[in-house]
Amino acid sequence: MTAATKSCLAITGGVGGAKLALGLSRQLQPEKLTIVANTGDDFEHLGLDICPDLDTVMYTLANLSDKDSGWGQADETWQFLAALGQLGGDTWFSLGDKDLATHVVRTRERAKGKSLSVVTRELCSALNIEHSLVPMSDDPVATLIHCQSGEVLAFQHYFVRDQCQPAINGYSFSGIGSASRCSEFTRALQDPELGSIILCPSNPFVSVAPVLDIDDTVDMMVQQSAPVIAVSPIVAGVALKGPAAKMMAELKMPSTALGVAEYYVDRYPGLLDAIVLDIADAKQATAVEALGVQALVVKTVMTSLQDREQLAADVLKFAERLSLV
Amino acid sequence: MTAATKSCLAITGGVGGAKLALGLSRQLQPEKLTIVANTGDDFEHLGLDICPDLDTVMYTLANLSDKDSGWGQADETWQFLAALGQLGGDTWFSLGDKDLATHVVRTRERAKGKSLSVVTRELCSALNIEHSLVPMSDDPVATLIHCQSGEVLAFQHYFVRDQCQPAINGYSFSGIGSASRCSEFTRALQDPELGSIILCPSNPFVSVAPVLDIDDTVDMMVQQSAPVIAVSPIVAGVALKGPAAKMMAELKMPSTALGVAEYYVDRYPGLLDAIVLDIADAKQATAVEALGVQALVVKTVMTSLQDREQLAADVLKFAERLSLV
Repeated sequence: MTAATKSCLAITGGVGGAKLALGLSRQLQPEKLTIVANTGDDFEHLGLDICPDLDTVMYTLANLSDKDSGWGQADETWQFLAALGQLGGDTWFSLGDKDLATHVVRTRERAKGKSLSVVTRELCSALNIEHSLVPMSDDPVATLIHCQSGEVLAFQHYFVRDQCQPAINGYSFSGIGSASRCSEFTRALQDPELGSIILCPSNPFVSVAPVLDIDDTVDMMVQQSAPVIAVSPIVAGVALKGPAAKMMAELKMPSTALGVAEYYVDRYPGLLDAIVLDIADAKQATAVEALGVQALVVKTVMTSLQDREQLAADVLKFAERLSLV
Repeated sequence: MTAATKSCLAITGGVGGAKLALGLSRQLQPEKLTIVANTGDDFEHLGLDICPDLDTVMYTLANLSDKDSGWGQADETWQFLAALGQLGGDTWFSLGDKDLATHVVRTRERAKGKSLSVVTRELCSALNIEHSLVPMSDDPVATLIHCQSGEVLAFQHYFVRDQCQPAINGYSFSGIGSASRCSEFTRALQDPELGSIILCPSNPFVSVAPVLDIDDTVDMMVQQSAPVIAVSPIVAGVALKGPAAKMMAELKMPSTALGVAEYYVDRYPGLLDAIVLDIADAKQATAVEALGVQALVVKTVMTSLQDREQLAADVLKFAERLSLV
């Protein structure tokens, strides 16, 4: 059996993870890939249900995403936001005119009683996305950022409104104790044909951890024979996108790929089989392997579509190799 | 006492009425004018509270309205609507990107428990509108169109979705029996300084009638000493905007300014003191006066801003003259 016939479960946050998810979707048949997105960032804003990570992945898979920022839609316009400002509304969260349609449809459909996963499936279907993109949960989970000042911020207030300026000393996921996985997520975890579980290059603390922390997800991943492979979102000591490196420094961790591996090993003992490091971090491979984690060193910086496809192919091949050990 | 020191109550629907409302706002100090807009057209669409007539008047007063169509905003864009279509949403009601901000803010503020009149005041204040624009009621009233086919349509379905194509044989206002006037509307009706009540050139059946039919509005207008003056929305046998003339034909009324006068006299005995006819309809003045209704013949077609101001001045001067009789 080759990797191509085995299925893959990818856990992702927004921009960086979405790039790899797109690469995976171009390497695997729709029935072989389940992409689970973090919903801890979700929030209600202006009466609308907004799911930033889900939407970033959805727009990326639909080839609608803005190529420069990685989030939102290409050729977006901002007339709504300008008019909202004129009416005295909150404009700190950038809602584009096209993007708004997603939130309006989602809010309305959920108000009718549909679950987030059903609405996500409908939206993906309308955008001709064939691969399975599912929220981690249909239950509300809210990532909270604990600042060194003592303040606790809702994630989007920290991330967007305050531009990640506050120094943090922790984070938590409100509602996580009573949240259940989406059924598609559980089904993917139970798939006897599962060949890889990939933790995409997303923020380990606020994008991947909420997904892992639901229910017995980590136990199920540990019990699964498929290798669990993280792709480091830290390259050469910096996060390509977002506050991961800054958070690591504030949390007294080394802001390195090795630091990412150490974090996963500490927080989720026995979970991680391997980590993918960028060639810039090749020298950290030995230290990573000393943690009992296999290391693959390849180019992980994804600039072009070909980069996304190549990294996906590399990771899947790596998973296949790990399965044969 | 001159007309300028007396106050004016204007009853209006959308486009045509809004033009005269704007003219009145340029002739009268803010404290001397109350504009009451029809809300029978209001509906919930995509989970948003939409008030077409209120918004048309609001945008007109704020100098934001699209000069060609008379509704919506100038320099509007339609990215949201295109994206909504891509998601399979209902696109028959044209929601512009700028316009959306109004509906999103209104929906959110009303969800917090604010009344429509409070939210309208806040929106108008944000748009620097100094004159008082109030909804006829804070209670829901829904104009229903009774088609000759037997079908009953919500107003916007008839007006926008079906482009006024169905032949009608009646209309009704669901909820009118339990709706109360807004307090500002009642206050204007009770104002001892009231010098004129103007029924703007809006559809007599579905724009003006819902406002008149609330509570004891007609009785209060009849008892008020201020003259009630309608401005005919029919000029030379056609409605300048909307289905008024088509409806009159289907309701077996002559589609003329005289027909409008006859309708008001029949439906609301004793209400109408006068009607303003366009110069194109000068020959109908005698027949109108035979109904016991005074006639003023002036140019009523409002193309320019100056036309709006001139008609407003003409009507106010006419009201003053009628008061002296």
